[in-house]
Amino acid sequence: MGKEVIKQLNFEKTGGLIPVIAQDYETGEVLMLAYMNEEAFNKTLETSKAHYWSRSRGKLWLKGEESGHVQLVKEILVDCDGDTLLLKVEQIGGAACHKGYKSCFFRRIEDGDAKIISKQVFDPKEKYKK
Amino acid sequence: MGKEVIKQLNFEKTGGLIPVIAQDYETGEVLMLAYMNEEAFNKTLETSKAHYWSRSRGKLWLKGEESGHVQLVKEILVDCDGDTLLLKVEQIGGAACHKGYKSCFFRRIEDGDAKIISKQVFDPKEKYKK
Repeated sequence: MGKEVIKQLNFEKTGGLIPVIAQDYETGEVLMLAYMNEEAFNKTLETSKAHYWSRSRGKLWLKGEESGHVQLVKEILVDCDGDTLLLKVEQIGGAACHKGYKSCFFRRIEDGDAKIISKQVFDPKEKYKK
Repeated sequence: MGKEVIKQLNFEKTGGLIPVIAQDYETGEVLMLAYMNEEAFNKTLETSKAHYWSRSRGKLWLKGEESGHVQLVKEILVDCDGDTLLLKVEQIGGAACHKGYKSCFFRRIEDGDAKIISKQVFDPKEKYKK
């Protein structure tokens, strides 16, 4: 499986990683952008749970592995150049952002500043207790 | 203008370019993903028309400069890490994709293949006559 699709994806263009947009499959809200390598892509296809490559931690990352906020993948779209993916997902827990917001895009650029326009769904200090 | 915002954007993390998602401001449809450097970001703020950095041509690119399909920027959102932008735009001409589709994400991954799920809005051969 996936082999034919992989041929149409251009992982090389961006050094082995392609950007992936996650979008709420019901509301259309853009939740986040992350990156996949081939392994993350294949894991996502196999499990229907979004897997990414964490650039900061340098490892494969099941989104929600720590918080429980996994993304159930309903649909995968590929762009004209084969170098970007769009996942339509059901976001478990109601929040994609590790800062506690539904979407990572919770700040709007206004008058030369970035203003918070959303409410927190959870308190990250509570969620990610060490 | 824009100086305070620029400080909150991390262009360095990805070698001077940040990924930018363009989304239809009315329907929420994700139209495309492109990249901005600081110059493209500032031009976008100044003009309210989406400007990107074309990686293939190595130059600043006013989206729609050839096709007329410019993007009027209604809103700019920045993500939690300051390394991705989301533009809410009015897509003039009804199509963002140079292949003639409304969205660059006109193919869905199904059964190991990428199948076209949208209709062309224009014929690229007609539009981009040389």
